[in-house]
Amino acid sequence: MTIEIADIKVRPEARDAFCETIARAARTVLAKAGGYRRHQILACHETPGRFVLIVEWDSLEAHTVGFRQSPAFAEWRAMIGPFFERAPHVEHFNPVADS
Amino acid sequence: MTIEIADIKVRPEARDAFCETIARAARTVLAKAGGYRRHQILACHETPGRFVLIVEWDSLEAHTVGFRQSPAFAEWRAMIGPFFERAPHVEHFNPVADS
Repeated sequence: MTIEIADIKVRPEARDAFCETIARAARTVLAKAGGYRRHQILACHETPGRFVLIVEWDSLEAHTVGFRQSPAFAEWRAMIGPFFERAPHVEHFNPVADS
Repeated sequence: MTIEIADIKVRPEARDAFCETIARAARTVLAKAGGYRRHQILACHETPGRFVLIVEWDSLEAHTVGFRQSPAFAEWRAMIGPFFERAPHVEHFNPVADS
């Protein structure tokens, strides 16, 4: 199991539309990807326009190969990309054992 | 409900000891705080020594006042603080509606 954390900054005037659009894109595109388990979309309290997307995948490759190299990724980015102030920063994590 | 995300960088030689210690500190100190719901400790795949702690709290104040201003916080920091390469960066988040 791998957890993707994407750090996203959205243009200030586009915040509400981004929330509606990423919620819809997650339901209709992301959640149908192979190896997808669940996601959370979080809005930052301290920095308006900052969001974090957390996605749990079966494996690192389910995200980096299965999803990213599929036509669904282009569809996902076409939906949410126009709201970005800069390119998202994406990292992958593994749970620390016994934590 | 508020989600705390703490960005933690640990001295490279201390990684294994940090994992064992923060897992124990979370069970014995953090998880007993008022308003605590659940937590995850995640190790970064791309950057060894980088960790993310995600804690779900009943409210922002449960973390910033209830926990941070309690003796338990001093105990928590005394356990994990010695491993830090720099001070952790902590932010709070709210789930995006309908996401």
